[in-house]
Amino acid sequence: MKEFDTIAAVATAVGEGSVSIIRVSGEEALKIAKKIFRGVRGKSIDDIKPYTMRYGSIIDSETNEKIDEVILSYMKGPKSFTAEDTIEINCHGGVIATKRVLDTVIKSGARLAEPGEFTKRAFLNGRIDLSQAEAVMDIINSKTEVSMKSALVQSEGKLSKEINELRNKLLEIIAHIEATVDYPEDDLEEVTSEKTELDVKLVINEVNKLIESAEAGKIIRDGLSTVIVGKPNVGKSSLLNVLTRGNRAIVTDIPGTTRDIIEEYISLDGIPIRIIDTAGIRETEDVVEKIGVERSKEKIEEADLVILMLDASREIAEEDIEIIKYIKNKKYIVLLNKQDLPNAINQNDLKELNQDYIIPISTKDELGIDEIKNAIKELFFNGKINSSEVMVTNIRHKEALYKAKECLQSTLCALKDTMAIDLASIDIRNAWSALGQINGETVEEDLIDKIFSEFCLGK
Amino acid sequence: MKEFDTIAAVATAVGEGSVSIIRVSGEEALKIAKKIFRGVRGKSIDDIKPYTMRYGSIIDSETNEKIDEVILSYMKGPKSFTAEDTIEINCHGGVIATKRVLDTVIKSGARLAEPGEFTKRAFLNGRIDLSQAEAVMDIINSKTEVSMKSALVQSEGKLSKEINELRNKLLEIIAHIEATVDYPEDDLEEVTSEKTELDVKLVINEVNKLIESAEAGKIIRDGLSTVIVGKPNVGKSSLLNVLTRGNRAIVTDIPGTTRDIIEEYISLDGIPIRIIDTAGIRETEDVVEKIGVERSKEKIEEADLVILMLDASREIAEEDIEIIKYIKNKKYIVLLNKQDLPNAINQNDLKELNQDYIIPISTKDELGIDEIKNAIKELFFNGKINSSEVMVTNIRHKEALYKAKECLQSTLCALKDTMAIDLASIDIRNAWSALGQINGETVEEDLIDKIFSEFCLGK
Repeated sequence: MKEFDTIAAVATAVGEGSVSIIRVSGEEALKIAKKIFRGVRGKSIDDIKPYTMRYGSIIDSETNEKIDEVILSYMKGPKSFTAEDTIEINCHGGVIATKRVLDTVIKSGARLAEPGEFTKRAFLNGRIDLSQAEAVMDIINSKTEVSMKSALVQSEGKLSKEINELRNKLLEIIAHIEATVDYPEDDLEEVTSEKTELDVKLVINEVNKLIESAEAGKIIRDGLSTVIVGKPNVGKSSLLNVLTRGNRAIVTDIPGTTRDIIEEYISLDGIPIRIIDTAGIRETEDVVEKIGVERSKEKIEEADLVILMLDASREIAEEDIEIIKYIKNKKYIVLLNKQDLPNAINQNDLKELNQDYIIPISTKDELGIDEIKNAIKELFFNGKINSSEVMVTNIRHKEALYKAKECLQSTLCALKDTMAIDLASIDIRNAWSALGQINGETVEEDLIDKIFSEFCLGK
Repeated sequence: MKEFDTIAAVATAVGEGSVSIIRVSGEEALKIAKKIFRGVRGKSIDDIKPYTMRYGSIIDSETNEKIDEVILSYMKGPKSFTAEDTIEINCHGGVIATKRVLDTVIKSGARLAEPGEFTKRAFLNGRIDLSQAEAVMDIINSKTEVSMKSALVQSEGKLSKEINELRNKLLEIIAHIEATVDYPEDDLEEVTSEKTELDVKLVINEVNKLIESAEAGKIIRDGLSTVIVGKPNVGKSSLLNVLTRGNRAIVTDIPGTTRDIIEEYISLDGIPIRIIDTAGIRETEDVVEKIGVERSKEKIEEADLVILMLDASREIAEEDIEIIKYIKNKKYIVLLNKQDLPNAINQNDLKELNQDYIIPISTKDELGIDEIKNAIKELFFNGKINSSEVMVTNIRHKEALYKAKECLQSTLCALKDTMAIDLASIDIRNAWSALGQINGETVEEDLIDKIFSEFCLGK
């Protein structure tokens, strides 16, 4: 294991809470703890055993002033999150107590950890690979249960396992080629070339499957950005209310919390849906709505999914016909609202659209809501979501897969055009290297630093 | 120890953090943990020892689905925060992971804890008294280091100890009176009455000392509400900048946090200062300032401390003279700013004010800032702050002390007017009971419920 200095940071969220955790990791963690901790009746922690806890106080070792009442726990490396000796101090929550204990730890020899530095050490110490480290952050930031399950699967190393298998296959192919090149007298080049082509195609197939999972994966991780367009009073605000009720994702779901909402997500059967301009819809629907066709088109451009709402009890307006023409090449759902009223819509106006995605609904009677969910699943997930399957959710991984695929395709070209299988082996090695970026085996230090700097502090 | 049902809640703040803690307390805590925890290689926690931790997963016991990767710790009652068997589950931070683990615990038999319910149990189980319980909340909400130290002293039971001593003294007096009343033939009534008067006066003295600490105590706990008034361009905004620099209290003091500021406090040598209408000062100073004399007077009414700023390089304006008359009966400081320019102020206009609190300053050269701090300490703390002394910080405690004092004063009346020392003993018993409200020994259940309901969730 590598040796680093000892770092510390607050591992819990900052704000009003009963308890905060100060995490200290590194060679000196226990030594620092010994300096600042006093157990009941002045007992020291010289004899503390790994994976046990002690109740006592944090003391300023210079002034002997009591800083806070705490519970201290000890995890001996490599059996810890960072794989280093780790001390966790559970102190009182709130900003001041947390800061005082952290300050005392820093004063006693630890350095304030950079964002992501604990996880970076877990990676550098070989406890987890890069895609697992990234999954840890995705778990914390996950927006719905499905997002979290998918990140948990990745954190357990299932993506890493598939990537390693592909890389091993590529190494076998390279070994085979090299054996052929080393013994040219055997005249096996043609046979080898054919076998290589077959093998490479199989790997390309697997890479393609992973790339295909990336669209759904990205949505599960980051949310499906959705715009609801339609004329005033068509029911956009009511739709939002029906969808939101009991389905709000990240927000104030834990009772008693009153945090401000930074971004609002609706969870539709676990798919995080981020409605563009929610506030706009809520504010403008009951007052005067000013969003015209041009503004709607702009919003449509930003979105993964367009929901066009029409009033089925009226004829389709000019503006709506313009929008219908505009969305034809996007992923869309058209909702015919107000099915509780007599229908007056001219089906001819809708004939250019895919009829599967035209859904009669009534926000008043809450009819058709399940059909909306099913249509979204059909459009983006081929009808079903399986969050326990390996899925590529990270754009960095997707790019690495594309890079690998390119290299493998140029392998196929090399094999066809020149029969020079030794050239082909260079391309295969590049593909192997591209895949290694996913689990971090072939990643440069700069990129590693960049990836971890985007983590939150204390992780 | 009393027996309660098993409760659970998130003990850490909610938001982006690396780790969250789910706390489970009560008879069933360990049983619930056994049901939903799987250690490495499927190991159970049947043999878990108190004050140790285990690494593993939380599992949905019905579906066997893995919910999150966790570290579980076990504190056996009465050696725990609540004095009950307690399990703490450290799971991934972020809203979804935290909620999933909490939901699993609730599904497995725990009840969601009410705000303050963990601390309430610590109180009901006799581990801490009521004033200590209240101090726990004050620690979490503390605004500066001094506020926290003062709350820590109270949480250690130092106030309780003083209150208990006073109550014991009152009991001794009562015992003495009763002995006299029981043996009237000894004709000791007069002697006893004189001694009682002396003893009661001593207790009143002690009660008075505590009441006197309450003004400073309240400020240390809740902050000194301060208004800065003065004409446009007198330097209010610059003063605020000088005071704030490096002295901001609760805010974004922990590196890497970017929470919104709900209330802004400045820490002046540990005294939390809350400037009324900070935003108003910051916004209006550079633009056009509209706050006239009437509006200033309104703000002055809300404040504990008035800071009137004058431009020493000009004559005092009509409006300022009106303000000077108005603040005479408030606690005030008058700052003569712009000492870097030639002085043009007419001292006669200030002659009605206390000259000790007229301070020449220069926000430009940062002169006079220490004098401001000293004046505030003089006005509110008799010149020095000692946060390690027992101080009454809680309005509820102050009211109980006033109640006790009243009863003791009517004891003195009873003794003087009627010589009926048995009547006096009723008043003394009422004083004893009033003091008991502070540590919770004589508090009714309704009030207890009310006090704890104001705690934060998870505490």
